[in-house]
Amino acid sequence: MRFMKINRTPLRYFTTTLLLAFLLCPPAPAQRRGENAPTYAYPPQLVAELNQIKQAALESDYAYRQLAHLCNAIGPRLSGSPQAQQAVEYVAAEMRRLGLEVKLERVMVPHWVRGVETAELVTFAGQAPKTTQKVVLTALGGSVATPPEGLTAEVLVVKNYDELRALGRERVAGKIVVYNFPFDQRLAEQGAALEAYGQAAAYRGIGASEAAKLGAVAAMNRAAGGANYRLPHTGAMFYLPDVPKIPAASLTAEDADLLAYLTTQGTVKMHLTLTPQTLPDAESFNVIADLKGSEHPDQVVIVSGHLDSWDLGTGAVDDGAGVAMAMQAVQLIKQLGLKPKRTIRFIPWMNEENGSRGGTTYERDHATEIGNHIAAIEADLGAGHPSGFFAHAGPAAIGMLRPLSPILQSFGASLIKASPNAVGEDISYLEAKGVPGFAPIFDSRHYFDYHHTPADTLDKVNPRDLAENSALMAVLAYAIANLPEALPR
Amino acid sequence: MRFMKINRTPLRYFTTTLLLAFLLCPPAPAQRRGENAPTYAYPPQLVAELNQIKQAALESDYAYRQLAHLCNAIGPRLSGSPQAQQAVEYVAAEMRRLGLEVKLERVMVPHWVRGVETAELVTFAGQAPKTTQKVVLTALGGSVATPPEGLTAEVLVVKNYDELRALGRERVAGKIVVYNFPFDQRLAEQGAALEAYGQAAAYRGIGASEAAKLGAVAAMNRAAGGANYRLPHTGAMFYLPDVPKIPAASLTAEDADLLAYLTTQGTVKMHLTLTPQTLPDAESFNVIADLKGSEHPDQVVIVSGHLDSWDLGTGAVDDGAGVAMAMQAVQLIKQLGLKPKRTIRFIPWMNEENGSRGGTTYERDHATEIGNHIAAIEADLGAGHPSGFFAHAGPAAIGMLRPLSPILQSFGASLIKASPNAVGEDISYLEAKGVPGFAPIFDSRHYFDYHHTPADTLDKVNPRDLAENSALMAVLAYAIANLPEALPR
Repeated sequence: MRFMKINRTPLRYFTTTLLLAFLLCPPAPAQRRGENAPTYAYPPQLVAELNQIKQAALESDYAYRQLAHLCNAIGPRLSGSPQAQQAVEYVAAEMRRLGLEVKLERVMVPHWVRGVETAELVTFAGQAPKTTQKVVLTALGGSVATPPEGLTAEVLVVKNYDELRALGRERVAGKIVVYNFPFDQRLAEQGAALEAYGQAAAYRGIGASEAAKLGAVAAMNRAAGGANYRLPHTGAMFYLPDVPKIPAASLTAEDADLLAYLTTQGTVKMHLTLTPQTLPDAESFNVIADLKGSEHPDQVVIVSGHLDSWDLGTGAVDDGAGVAMAMQAVQLIKQLGLKPKRTIRFIPWMNEENGSRGGTTYERDHATEIGNHIAAIEADLGAGHPSGFFAHAGPAAIGMLRPLSPILQSFGASLIKASPNAVGEDISYLEAKGVPGFAPIFDSRHYFDYHHTPADTLDKVNPRDLAENSALMAVLAYAIANLPEALPR
Repeated sequence: MRFMKINRTPLRYFTTTLLLAFLLCPPAPAQRRGENAPTYAYPPQLVAELNQIKQAALESDYAYRQLAHLCNAIGPRLSGSPQAQQAVEYVAAEMRRLGLEVKLERVMVPHWVRGVETAELVTFAGQAPKTTQKVVLTALGGSVATPPEGLTAEVLVVKNYDELRALGRERVAGKIVVYNFPFDQRLAEQGAALEAYGQAAAYRGIGASEAAKLGAVAAMNRAAGGANYRLPHTGAMFYLPDVPKIPAASLTAEDADLLAYLTTQGTVKMHLTLTPQTLPDAESFNVIADLKGSEHPDQVVIVSGHLDSWDLGTGAVDDGAGVAMAMQAVQLIKQLGLKPKRTIRFIPWMNEENGSRGGTTYERDHATEIGNHIAAIEADLGAGHPSGFFAHAGPAAIGMLRPLSPILQSFGASLIKASPNAVGEDISYLEAKGVPGFAPIFDSRHYFDYHHTPADTLDKVNPRDLAENSALMAVLAYAIANLPEALPR
């Protein structure tokens, strides 16, 4: 997940991101609303089937094996890359193997390719030019390049936008601006990881443009994530209109500290080389895999994660895990020989990370059918133990799902929290049209330790947690597909 | 610290490393020996001075400021590098500024320079050659290079030496051998970090030669350290005589897992490029900074850490911290206007990491004075909270130091543990000649998370812990320097 929406007002991108809505949503009123809804009893057979699905999911290693294949045998899946295409082909083939109806829907995606990314100090702390220090950083997705031979400029460290603006053009022009705004790990560990991330990532998204407005020649943000192991955290950035495009990178926390220290000692100059390329948009695909409904095949319940990932790690927590959970949901229902009454549609979305083209293209191409989309579920915040699910839905719909709590309670996932905002980036375009949206409530305290870093790898996913999330998604999807009445909007 | 001694029998390097002695040393008998020693009372003035030193050390930020300068303003200090030379000059100047008698003693050091280090998979899991995966690794210190264009070979993953040997030449010849022996983090967290390290580092030291004996073309060990954040852990390796020299690297834990997974799926080929260079030995120096004794200037008590570091991080926990503690010890005694009766000699050792030339050269050049070396203290296991000190000394000497326990107890450092073996790499050459050796007992549970990695940076050192260690070293050194009798051997 990335928390930016290319097609919204820039200033809102990082301050009112849809997923921050999780935080702004007090659970108590939501639960009161649910409690006021009429009690809804499920047919005994449905309850039995849901328990059967849950048990099978908790005992299955299918999701983990899928995740291992995506991460290890395919690898990083940045939009436009051969690996992303390979992942599309693999998932489509696997769904066909399971007997689902599969089609590929074309999505044109941005095609940004990482290049050389090096930086070293050439003047610092009065050192002779024979010595240097390497600075560990990574280009932000979408960044323009420096000249091939790099650029050299003085480093200006600021705490935040206020400090930058107070310094003004005279002090900023010609400099490499470093935003040294720290990720608040304590906040993350207290359960507000998204808030900590939102605060720090604000300097990633438009930091370059804000610095360029004052004449800076490059910009860097401090890692928008926890865990100080000299790890750069990449992610999407974009340029504001009518502002010069300058190269943008993300520093490790340690390197931001280093620059902050050295600039208190004297002038610091850095030589920076970034050679990413933005190629023409590439053809890619959303895979649409349907487990057709027996009674209402035209009514659709989406289970999903996003298939693309950043290129530094292998996209395990972001978001191979979400894809694997959704694959497990349809695989299990099929394997158990259960018949959903409504269609359960698995979509591994393409291009969540740097364009959301999968989500926007689907919404556009299926505009006439959105009235028949009963619900959309997306998992895109890792695979930590789920304590329940977020429901971006009305009180009546939430009331209809309340009987799931006792079923999910056996593995500690009984919470149902109403969200006033969309709960997943890719499904947000459907949610905006009134489709109820759902997402697991993850333990995300350490998600941002790995998110967008080289360390986002398979070992970061606990198989048991993944199985619990798969159980949650399968139970939720099957219940919505098989309730006697369609979930109200 | 590195745990290898170039001039010892190779097979002992990693199995009976001197520092593993810490673990093999049961505290109880040691304490009994201490308890059997005659009770030794310190002159009241000495006790007052020791308390004064302790208090001043705990309140000072001098050590931390020195460490910040070494790590940030100078940076990585690999032997033979301009930064190592700069560190020598800085420390010498600082000691002169404090009023110590300073000389530089020449030490010829190995001069190994890291080059390109890249690896990617070219065949794996039946993937088309258009896709690949990067493998994150780092060359081991001392490794020879691949051809400049790299080499391509099949990957063979083994758990340990036994499995390698069982496979035999037929299966090993022509392969890149990967030793997938994990660092046991639980063991480390239970207080046996050195044991966990010793087990894993055994594959770093002579892994290449053991593989080359069976015809391998390159060798890689899994990170000999904790914390799975895609961090490579470098360190020294060496070649056994009469075995072909093949390139040697260290993989991150994640990449070792990746290769272990993929090799279960089919043939995996890797393209490996390592271009380090071994240049002619370079001139460097041990700094010898004396705070001359007022009564026995010829009797010497050494306080020390090693000034060189690996090149990936900035050498904070290994071992800028040890140097900073020792600098603080002499700075404080000088600042407080105290007069040691014996000479306190600060030595920032050169080349601990890849040659121990500082330690061996000192022992050779001072051979005739070693009888006058009363004690040697070295700190080289980070800067975690000290719970006391190890004493590689006889019961009589330990008995004479037991009155320090109540002084150090105020910050939880009252333990005195006898060690049957040397307690510091650089001082081990003196200890071997009978000089009593001392080292803090560090909390090292997380030392190997950072050790030899890019993440060994200033932020990993807690200023309070550093001050406690400085207090311990200063108190111990001053006591030994000022006891009425010289510490017996």
